[in-house]
Amino acid sequence: MADPAHSPSLTRDSVLAAHELVKPHIHRTPVLTNTTLSNLASAPQAAEALRGTQWESQEPAKPKIRLFFKCENLQRIGAFKVRGAFHAVKRLIEQDGLEVVRKRGVVTHSSGNHAQALALAARTFSIPAHIVMPSISTPSKIAGTQSQGAILHFSGSTAQEREAVVADVVKETGATLVPPYDHPDIILGQGTMGIEFEREVEELIRGKQSLSVAEGKAGLDAVVAPCGGGGMLSGNAVALKGTGIRVFGAEPSFQGADDARRGVEAGQRITSVKTLTIADGLRTPLGEWTWKIVSDKGHVEGLYSVTERNIRDAMKLVLERMKVVVEPSAVVPLAVALYNEDFRKLVERSGEGWNVGVVFSGGNTTVEAISKIFADAASEEKAEREEGVLAKDGGRVAENVAG
Amino acid sequence: MADPAHSPSLTRDSVLAAHELVKPHIHRTPVLTNTTLSNLASAPQAAEALRGTQWESQEPAKPKIRLFFKCENLQRIGAFKVRGAFHAVKRLIEQDGLEVVRKRGVVTHSSGNHAQALALAARTFSIPAHIVMPSISTPSKIAGTQSQGAILHFSGSTAQEREAVVADVVKETGATLVPPYDHPDIILGQGTMGIEFEREVEELIRGKQSLSVAEGKAGLDAVVAPCGGGGMLSGNAVALKGTGIRVFGAEPSFQGADDARRGVEAGQRITSVKTLTIADGLRTPLGEWTWKIVSDKGHVEGLYSVTERNIRDAMKLVLERMKVVVEPSAVVPLAVALYNEDFRKLVERSGEGWNVGVVFSGGNTTVEAISKIFADAASEEKAEREEGVLAKDGGRVAENVAG
Repeated sequence: MADPAHSPSLTRDSVLAAHELVKPHIHRTPVLTNTTLSNLASAPQAAEALRGTQWESQEPAKPKIRLFFKCENLQRIGAFKVRGAFHAVKRLIEQDGLEVVRKRGVVTHSSGNHAQALALAARTFSIPAHIVMPSISTPSKIAGTQSQGAILHFSGSTAQEREAVVADVVKETGATLVPPYDHPDIILGQGTMGIEFEREVEELIRGKQSLSVAEGKAGLDAVVAPCGGGGMLSGNAVALKGTGIRVFGAEPSFQGADDARRGVEAGQRITSVKTLTIADGLRTPLGEWTWKIVSDKGHVEGLYSVTERNIRDAMKLVLERMKVVVEPSAVVPLAVALYNEDFRKLVERSGEGWNVGVVFSGGNTTVEAISKIFADAASEEKAEREEGVLAKDGGRVAENVAG
Repeated sequence: MADPAHSPSLTRDSVLAAHELVKPHIHRTPVLTNTTLSNLASAPQAAEALRGTQWESQEPAKPKIRLFFKCENLQRIGAFKVRGAFHAVKRLIEQDGLEVVRKRGVVTHSSGNHAQALALAARTFSIPAHIVMPSISTPSKIAGTQSQGAILHFSGSTAQEREAVVADVVKETGATLVPPYDHPDIILGQGTMGIEFEREVEELIRGKQSLSVAEGKAGLDAVVAPCGGGGMLSGNAVALKGTGIRVFGAEPSFQGADDARRGVEAGQRITSVKTLTIADGLRTPLGEWTWKIVSDKGHVEGLYSVTERNIRDAMKLVLERMKVVVEPSAVVPLAVALYNEDFRKLVERSGEGWNVGVVFSGGNTTVEAISKIFADAASEEKAEREEGVLAKDGGRVAENVAG
């Protein structure tokens, strides 16, 4: 990877510069609104819904929330990851020259959206892309990455096994590692979404004044972004620093997937997470770079987590009411706005309505996966009650260790 | 219902007038494009895919098709039906005066999108809406209709039983019947979609010249619309008459659901259909008014049908590639463009690329229904092989008789 020491500083100006670099290669994804969901977010939850939670028998919050959805599920390759990947590749080219980068190639270890994003970005500039994937990856992910013209290398599913294969590829080819999140160029690339989100909501409100919940509000009050490795949350936080728009992170709570929230609370980064949350893009712990930003209250004002049932309920609402397809990780911020009473009380306490931007991070799922999520609902609700007890996995959970 | 004798004539000008009436009450739904799906439509099908069909061992067609999707799944109440319902209600008000209509109310027999559409249109003008639904309707449909403020009446599931309850309501309240499709005011209302479709595609092509498959094409060559009762197909045909845009109908073939195609072939309207096709909005036969238009080659140039597997495959593509949620009935036109060799050969024979507009008629489905469709795939494929053998239904199939 481009030496982080030579990366632009983590500032809004650097994100604006990154946006100029990636703009020709990405979609400016639309921002949607939905009256039903905004009304739902602005209605107090039923006391019944809070039973068994930490908010049981408390008065349900009565926030006023107008929701705005940044549809990165409609982004190229179906997820925001192309932003960071194109930025990292273009920065590499700037630094080393296209011919050198073409000779060496790029490599990453990822079985998900980042792999496809890097493959696409590399292909765009005729750069070979080596992708190291666990051999247990789903066939659709393998096919998706192959269809982008990448060279696949299979590994075991632990971090050590994957890194060993990456090291082999680097030794053989000289390829440069482009990590999925823990690098300034990736963070700045993902942050370009925040710039668009801010501007698009202002345009929407200018076009339809009635959209704003509070008189005189010209734009967003807050952005809630999913937090896995933290690249996109950090990017949004850097992009929106100084604008007055507050940035919050959203995590699943299942089996300790809320590592960022717990780490910030304890004042120490959690470096290993082992969870089977359905929000499979958010199973990763924070990295060193993303920890610095996510744990800084001046960047990320708070972190909130939601249950598997919350995620499923939010996903059902998005599919059935908004008629758009999202992957489970993508609805975690919406689930926070709808179901996390700590967040909802924060909005209520502010004494005014908030325009809340939630990031739909990706839409890469299958009808089989959707079927499974809702068919498994009953058994997962059981697992949820046993939350905290680490599932004895059958060899299918890769340990996710921060890079 | 407003006496058809007093309805405007079935012409493009009447549709333009209808559009002025309904425009304030409906969304101008977006037209989407998708490169992956257009490429797929423009690639010949594999010989393997044609095995067991009437095109087995024929050379697969090589049409050039650029697809445009009219997203009525993003329409109010999630389906195009609001167009006809608002038009019918506004015409009633024009004819009889608001006070009289308010006193009498409106009534329909429908368990689907038309019921919700009529309830919404009536509520908008504070008119009581009576909806007669089979008592076996799904709870979500009942709840959806109730949430629009309608007065529900339950009936048995045969046409006779429903009509008896409607007659009772009319006798008690004086309510006016607004049928779901077989009335000029409904046909003209649904046709407003065709006017928007034509204009939006022209705007899209003007904005992005590269979108057009063929040099110099400024708009659509054809529109393919789903055909159930035929209201929407007729409306599009009337709206686009004289524009040079050809209009085609799309039906499921399962258990004789392709009644329009068969009727036109035989020169006689088929008045009763009994099918369990997953495209549940298209289980209805044509009515008297819609038959006149659909069977007229000057209006509807051709009718094409697709199998249950075609519908499922198209639905999977739309959910996974376009990331939008559609109901099975809504993808039948896309399935024709992708899989019906008769249609594809017609395009190929024309010797030029076609800009084909397909109507996504609605998005009212549930995650449970999606799960069921794909979980049932295996058993439905078996049923498909037995096509032609009328399923012995367990009392859940209402006989659909044209009004």
